Amino acid sequence: MPADDLQSVADLARQLRVDSIRCTTSVGSGHPTSSLSAADLLAVLVTRHLRYDWTAPKRPENDHLIFSKGHASPLLYAVFRAVGVIDEDELISQYRRFGSRLQGHPTPVLPWVDLATGSLGVGVAAAVGVALAGKFLDELPYRVWVLCGDSELSEGSVWEAFDKAAFYELDNFTAIVDVNRLGQRGATEFGWDLDAYATRVAAFGCHPIETDGHDLAAIDAALNEAQRVRRPSVVLARTIKGKGAPEVEDKEGWHGVALPAEIAARSIAALGGPSSIVVSSALPEPGTPAITPNPHTPVTLPRYALGDKVATRRAYGEALVALAARPEVVVLDAEVGNSTHAEMFLAVAPERYFQTFIAEQLMVAAASGLAVRGYVPYAATFGAFVSRAFDFLRMSGISGASIRLAGSHAGVEIGPDGPSQMALEDLAALRAVHGSTVLYPADATSAVALTVAMADLPGISYIRTTRGAYPVIYGPEQEFPVGGAKVVRSGPADQVTLVGAGVTLHESLAAAELLAAEGIAARVVDCYSVKPVDMATLVASCAATGGRIVVTEDHYPAGGLGEAVLSALVAGGAVPRFAHLAVRELSQSGTAAELLAAAGISASCIAEAARSLFGS
Amino acid sequence: MPADDLQSVADLARQLRVDSIRCTTSVGSGHPTSSLSAADLLAVLVTRHLRYDWTAPKRPENDHLIFSKGHASPLLYAVFRAVGVIDEDELISQYRRFGSRLQGHPTPVLPWVDLATGSLGVGVAAAVGVALAGKFLDELPYRVWVLCGDSELSEGSVWEAFDKAAFYELDNFTAIVDVNRLGQRGATEFGWDLDAYATRVAAFGCHPIETDGHDLAAIDAALNEAQRVRRPSVVLARTIKGKGAPEVEDKEGWHGVALPAEIAARSIAALGGPSSIVVSSALPEPGTPAITPNPHTPVTLPRYALGDKVATRRAYGEALVALAARPEVVVLDAEVGNSTHAEMFLAVAPERYFQTFIAEQLMVAAASGLAVRGYVPYAATFGAFVSRAFDFLRMSGISGASIRLAGSHAGVEIGPDGPSQMALEDLAALRAVHGSTVLYPADATSAVALTVAMADLPGISYIRTTRGAYPVIYGPEQEFPVGGAKVVRSGPADQVTLVGAGVTLHESLAAAELLAAEGIAARVVDCYSVKPVDMATLVASCAATGGRIVVTEDHYPAGGLGEAVLSALVAGGAVPRFAHLAVRELSQSGTAAELLAAAGISASCIAEAARSLFGS
Repeated sequence: MPADDLQSVADLARQLRVDSIRCTTSVGSGHPTSSLSAADLLAVLVTRHLRYDWTAPKRPENDHLIFSKGHASPLLYAVFRAVGVIDEDELISQYRRFGSRLQGHPTPVLPWVDLATGSLGVGVAAAVGVALAGKFLDELPYRVWVLCGDSELSEGSVWEAFDKAAFYELDNFTAIVDVNRLGQRGATEFGWDLDAYATRVAAFGCHPIETDGHDLAAIDAALNEAQRVRRPSVVLARTIKGKGAPEVEDKEGWHGVALPAEIAARSIAALGGPSSIVVSSALPEPGTPAITPNPHTPVTLPRYALGDKVATRRAYGEALVALAARPEVVVLDAEVGNSTHAEMFLAVAPERYFQTFIAEQLMVAAASGLAVRGYVPYAATFGAFVSRAFDFLRMSGISGASIRLAGSHAGVEIGPDGPSQMALEDLAALRAVHGSTVLYPADATSAVALTVAMADLPGISYIRTTRGAYPVIYGPEQEFPVGGAKVVRSGPADQVTLVGAGVTLHESLAAAELLAAEGIAARVVDCYSVKPVDMATLVASCAATGGRIVVTEDHYPAGGLGEAVLSALVAGGAVPRFAHLAVRELSQSGTAAELLAAAGISASCIAEAARSLFGS
Repeated sequence: MPADDLQSVADLARQLRVDSIRCTTSVGSGHPTSSLSAADLLAVLVTRHLRYDWTAPKRPENDHLIFSKGHASPLLYAVFRAVGVIDEDELISQYRRFGSRLQGHPTPVLPWVDLATGSLGVGVAAAVGVALAGKFLDELPYRVWVLCGDSELSEGSVWEAFDKAAFYELDNFTAIVDVNRLGQRGATEFGWDLDAYATRVAAFGCHPIETDGHDLAAIDAALNEAQRVRRPSVVLARTIKGKGAPEVEDKEGWHGVALPAEIAARSIAALGGPSSIVVSSALPEPGTPAITPNPHTPVTLPRYALGDKVATRRAYGEALVALAARPEVVVLDAEVGNSTHAEMFLAVAPERYFQTFIAEQLMVAAASGLAVRGYVPYAATFGAFVSRAFDFLRMSGISGASIRLAGSHAGVEIGPDGPSQMALEDLAALRAVHGSTVLYPADATSAVALTVAMADLPGISYIRTTRGAYPVIYGPEQEFPVGGAKVVRSGPADQVTLVGAGVTLHESLAAAELLAAEGIAARVVDCYSVKPVDMATLVASCAATGGRIVVTEDHYPAGGLGEAVLSALVAGGAVPRFAHLAVRELSQSGTAAELLAAAGISASCIAEAARSLFGS
């Protein structure tokens, strides 16, 4: 680096440090020491390597800068000030304040932030998704730069990320690890043993680059090397936590603590005081993504004959095949695509099908990364294993990322594989994610319609599919609005409402037959949209049937269909006489019929619950 | 290996293969090919290395055999037959049948199974916990043998496990990886490239041993080496999926598929037909665990003065210090012990404190492993990051493992750190886990009492703690039975019930003051036990206050306190006029007071909701 450049970068680094201290001390919280350690890295990166049009953050050619160590937000925001997109007053007086976009950890409320970080191991995994988009879909030369902490490398998801970056030969992926030796409550596992990290990084197929994270020329060389190698790269930078604030440098007890005013003042003075340097990043080469999304592309849905037995998971796969007509649709598989039927997409659009192998966390994170670039990802695994990625779903919810997830093999219905393979808590988990949509179709027609509808839903949408094949009950002319429900059986003298979804809709229909034989008229409601739930239909059905309502779900009782329906009924002013059938004991192996009966959610159990509502 | 031994082990391996085929073909489901690949490994292990008293599976000196690739249950059960603990009829006619203990994936319903497996990456992580118990607590020379699949190595949790096995120098830990090249839907990422795996294993600090998984003498040598080295070891065995059934060997499309009867018959014939070999394992050396649990040890609880402001997370730490008197209590930290206050235990019982660094999956899995050996583990992290371990909690629920988990920094109450650090879906997730208990104390006295009560609870128990310090409202004489609730404010003319837990109890109490000033008498209920919930107290309070009830939670609306209370009320026959205040929008940074108000769960919002119930 020429001497002039060196000086200006050093000046910038000083400003980034001063600003990191100022904003945190001003509000009295935050992570200044974790920002100080990485200030030199960012000063070099932003001025000499990042290709980014700060005036147009949505330009497709821009590099991506992701702070996987989201707690270093003071540094990120100090960069934003230095490149001129936020001003000094906002940084110092608004950081972490109520109503401010400069939150404690970055979220996409800021246009220069791709996705929310702050749960370690998330950003680096999502970055793989962005890099996949760059290399295989956009075919643009942008680079994804991810800043990680050294503590963060304890998370298994980081190694899932490095593994997949190597598998897909993502030479546009560079992680920069700020090895400042100190975690939250003390030393990290490896301290400054960069070699230990480098050995692991290399073993996982990425190119490790060790550097002194406070030597600007060395950093510059490292970042050049990262771009030169034809592999994903991981820069391991030896740094000092709190660097530039001598009283706290490399000391325990200063993680997530704002510097007291006096220490802050002395540190800022030692750094030369506040400044207002404005720097720029290089602009990216103009370019155009290879794929142009076309959400208006006609999609021809598969059609099913009434009564044919088709598994909803198969319908999911067939819907993906139809959706392949839309160039922005991409599919991810965690090595179970032959079971979820996601694999059907592979045959028609292999260039938009990404295999993550058995790494559900990476699959979901990569979907979020693909969504950053405007793609419409569908990821699938067994519903039971969606639980592996729950934190990633939670974080995607905070990002507001639009991703689609299918969980197959729901409930005890799966039969002989036993409880480890049964999704029985997925509805609760997914309902609880911010901004989510939760769908659970009972037949192939509705499964196809809902899978296709998911393409245009904002936020996380989840579709729960069933292992077994059940009769098609809807004709192709039917519509399935998200938030709706279908009254699939009704008459003028209905005395009880039976609510089901998925397999329990079929059981509820069978129960209605049993009850009809006894002279009890039952209305049956298909609650295919679990969130949002169709309050109006539920309240009306409940009222029309004397308040009697039986909700049956192939799921544990907490947080699933039953509580969704009950909340809606009560919020809607109904006074239900409510029976809730759910899986209340640990299940086991058996046939679907045996397990539904044992769990008390079969047709005969539903009929019995309905009868009991007439007792009092 | 002497020639005679070689022959007898080979005969056993043939029987294991024959039985794996027979039981799966008999029921028409299961994973024979994944069992055949590992049959030679198990034949050598069980007869020549495992030290296990099959007549006394609870003997503390026994080795542990964990099938992390739980889908190879046919092989495991074939071993059980070969050592004489189950008979041929049970194996062949009961496997995967309803009511059988020989389920599709192993669970501890079988006395020789430590914990449920079937979600990949779980067993190997839990094995680290068992090995920790052996080395640091029991101080017995037993070894933990874990059978993994090669596909499984894509899961980040496997690398968390290897990393911690190395960090703790667990020379009693041996993973055996059945590298059969084929996953569920095709080839694995690395096929038979054992070197690629070995490089990673070594980089993560374990000792890799490559072997031919069908060469009995080579396997024997590898297992000897595993026991000789003074490090955790990982045997990488090159195997052929379906080995011994020539028509399916090394072929795609045979994962999780029982062999059709004709192929099965030909394969069994080629293997020499059924046999009834009975083998034995070496008995362990007699020994006594270094720690003798004493659940009757008196525990002196910390006491708090009414009105003192104490954070419940601090009370959690102080309760752990008190619990240190019980020799079986152990504590795990995922590198946030200074925030959860778990770290207070470190000062008094460092030998029973395990640092997992930032690896929440491993922390929870290790807790399950420690519970296998009868220890009473308490693990803690931020409530938000409990989500990272959700699959591990789900699987622990299936195991029926008794583990204790604290999630600190619940809800928007945490303030400036922002939404990524806010647990707002943890109650829903934990309520949905089978056999769980969910606790959420509002003050230090109840937090201490509940933390101590957790020591003797079966299954997973979760305590949610709060960042900020709030007044102590209970004297030390009070009792807090799990499943109870406290009426903390009441009068003869109460007109509305306000239900809270944690921070919202304090807001509800403040709301009652606001309402009292307007002449509205409010009853306030502390619902500190979210699961099980106190139906009787809730129904009685609701009835006594004209059905008017306001439930307020610092959590998203789905699946949390509100739905738990509503379900209990309706199940208990109440007809509530129900208001449910919860966090319905994405939160941000701010002070606790600002964020509680913005979320609509502050005292004034509660008072307003209560007033609205008088409207109609």
